[in-house]
Amino acid sequence: MSAKPLKIAVAGLGTVGAEVVRILAADAGLLTARAGRPIQVTDVSARNRAKDRGVDLSAYTWHDDAAQMAANADVDLVVELVGGADGAAHAVVRNALAAGRHVVTANKAMLAKHGVALAAQAEDGGRILAYEAAVAGGIPVVKALREGLAGNRVSGISGILNGTCNFILTTMRETGRSFGDVLKEAQDLGYAEADPAFDIDGNDAGQKLAIMASIAFGIPVDEQAVYLEGITSVSADDIAFADELGYRIKLLGIARQTDAGIEQRVHPVMIDRTAPLGQIEGVTNAVQLEGSAVGSIVLTGPGAGAGATASSVLSDLVDIAAGRSSPTFGIPHGQLRKLPAAPLERLVSAFYLRLMVWDKPGVIANVAGALGRHGVSLESVLQRGRDPGEVVPVVMVLHECEERAIRASLSEIEQLDSVAEKPTLIRIAGR
Amino acid sequence: MSAKPLKIAVAGLGTVGAEVVRILAADAGLLTARAGRPIQVTDVSARNRAKDRGVDLSAYTWHDDAAQMAANADVDLVVELVGGADGAAHAVVRNALAAGRHVVTANKAMLAKHGVALAAQAEDGGRILAYEAAVAGGIPVVKALREGLAGNRVSGISGILNGTCNFILTTMRETGRSFGDVLKEAQDLGYAEADPAFDIDGNDAGQKLAIMASIAFGIPVDEQAVYLEGITSVSADDIAFADELGYRIKLLGIARQTDAGIEQRVHPVMIDRTAPLGQIEGVTNAVQLEGSAVGSIVLTGPGAGAGATASSVLSDLVDIAAGRSSPTFGIPHGQLRKLPAAPLERLVSAFYLRLMVWDKPGVIANVAGALGRHGVSLESVLQRGRDPGEVVPVVMVLHECEERAIRASLSEIEQLDSVAEKPTLIRIAGR
Repeated sequence: MSAKPLKIAVAGLGTVGAEVVRILAADAGLLTARAGRPIQVTDVSARNRAKDRGVDLSAYTWHDDAAQMAANADVDLVVELVGGADGAAHAVVRNALAAGRHVVTANKAMLAKHGVALAAQAEDGGRILAYEAAVAGGIPVVKALREGLAGNRVSGISGILNGTCNFILTTMRETGRSFGDVLKEAQDLGYAEADPAFDIDGNDAGQKLAIMASIAFGIPVDEQAVYLEGITSVSADDIAFADELGYRIKLLGIARQTDAGIEQRVHPVMIDRTAPLGQIEGVTNAVQLEGSAVGSIVLTGPGAGAGATASSVLSDLVDIAAGRSSPTFGIPHGQLRKLPAAPLERLVSAFYLRLMVWDKPGVIANVAGALGRHGVSLESVLQRGRDPGEVVPVVMVLHECEERAIRASLSEIEQLDSVAEKPTLIRIAGR
Repeated sequence: MSAKPLKIAVAGLGTVGAEVVRILAADAGLLTARAGRPIQVTDVSARNRAKDRGVDLSAYTWHDDAAQMAANADVDLVVELVGGADGAAHAVVRNALAAGRHVVTANKAMLAKHGVALAAQAEDGGRILAYEAAVAGGIPVVKALREGLAGNRVSGISGILNGTCNFILTTMRETGRSFGDVLKEAQDLGYAEADPAFDIDGNDAGQKLAIMASIAFGIPVDEQAVYLEGITSVSADDIAFADELGYRIKLLGIARQTDAGIEQRVHPVMIDRTAPLGQIEGVTNAVQLEGSAVGSIVLTGPGAGAGATASSVLSDLVDIAAGRSSPTFGIPHGQLRKLPAAPLERLVSAFYLRLMVWDKPGVIANVAGALGRHGVSLESVLQRGRDPGEVVPVVMVLHECEERAIRASLSEIEQLDSVAEKPTLIRIAGR
């Protein structure tokens, strides 16, 4: 192969960066055949030069300062694996684009925050900003959305986008243990961070969703537009009741284009356990895409991990080496158009409502009365294990209604003497 | 948008062709934004000009002869939706490439038979031959394999590649009805052809598998290399026993690269009902890909239908209009290398064996003896409903062994007086 190599610099040599460098060396022949030219690492940068990463870096020029490397190294492309929405990562990407280099990144936080500006910088300079690894790890979902479904108006995206949350919810169901208990196990296994808020509050899924929504609907990426509700209030009781009702509880990211506007939301959902996303267990991610021509497709795979993330980084590298590219968010940045957001309070769905009530006569009548006053009707009530004078769970499945109706009911219900704790409300999908 | 349009001719205006033409007109603005230029139909051809296809063709130049159109129309690209491995379809594609036009096709039969020669013609002429629609309908699996997993050595592909077979097997399980009965229903519903052999004997799945195996392993596409076994011998009893054992029966296409060589095979498989492919029901298709970096990903979606197929055709059109392309089978045709085939008789798997035997003492001992003489060991035996003097099913689950051992056992077992019918043998996946 005599074609000119694509020379790249890698900024950030954590497990993903090291794996990218390792595979580029180990499978160079195959990658060259697929890309039509060699992909050659020439420069690398990380915080600690002395650290053993299990990969030979001696052939590469070392830089202590990644942003300087991005500006000055004699390369065609910079891989940004530093992480973080701002700071060094952002500087690496801006410097690389400013110097006329393509960028491949796995950085969802940066894209969710600065995606529009970076797309403009890249496209106005005739350079490529690629980020398959930023969404759903090893699943080629950015490619599927941007290219595979290019012939479709995309109406909806639903995804299990955070493996930590899905692991916790799966393990709670399998073991009957509490959220806090399983979270600790996830931390011990390395599936959850010491500060787990970013995962369990839905932020991580929200960033990935905002990126996909931009591609799907041609809107400027805007993480602030995503309604977030995490999984911390999901109890072992809820998991057990869901099972009894034929559901699984999943943290879903949902983006839809409806007559009411664009919905972007991340929250727990009860979903039929035989539905495609209801069957996804453990750390696996999955994304369901609805298109005007294709109907529904589902992509499932590992949402994190060094190998999976490296796979997506390498896909971007081979694409760029082979001369394949798309506008950052599927259409030129100047054509992205802000569309009205659908008001959450008008969202219609069925609901699961769990109340912790003092077990005495008349409680359910009072609750049903409050629901009825706002036009919310009961489909079924589950009360298990009576215990007069004690606090017991009562579960109600509510017919489809608008969020504002259930919210108004809840503010009355919370005032009832017989209601002992803040109620738990979980949306039910597909009804 | 002032960029030069991509001018295309469409050969074949069945439901897919008509849908492609309709969407190109209806969603022209969106497609132009995504492709960076308009995609403009200028010429069309089909057998019957008078037929009402529900789409306005008056703006296009009509050709009675598709092959002539491919040779002579003033277009950049020809969409081949004529169908058939040879004849008009083949002439359309060869003429289009010879005249320097790109080709988009949905024609798996042609690619499985003539893929290598057509790839050479396209690539040597600097033209693109794209065929996302030829494999698994609307699922962008060619793109996933060729580009999304470009950073991986692919070790395995398993897929539910024929919706007709999966519909039949699903319906047999759900209703307990016989193969013939359900096949007739599938024909009435339009899921199966009047001559169903191409689907139910595994040919259709085999062609799709051969195409994917070429991309995955860098080998010349060769449909003759695929071992085929259809679903006609799967009985209602087998379906019921599978369910009892925790399995589903699926017609899988499996291609693997192992130390023994390349495996390419299509046959019924018993697969855990909670496995990703075990959960796929009805006409849906699904493909599981195993890559060295990513691990396992699964793509699920509609394997047929006008909209789904049009979605894949349009994806290819947008790619080409946007300047994105790959070598036909992922690497340049001159670099495709024939690799040794793994001999089927050395394949190791566990087996389900159903015998129809005369219900009398000593039968199982005789069968077990024949198995034991070839080193095949029994994991379990199921015999339901004794009926002395009559023919009853006996099911055996066999531990992992080589195909040649079970085949040798079977030729002895078939000779036993107590065995009333040809035994049914189904491989068990993942054990």
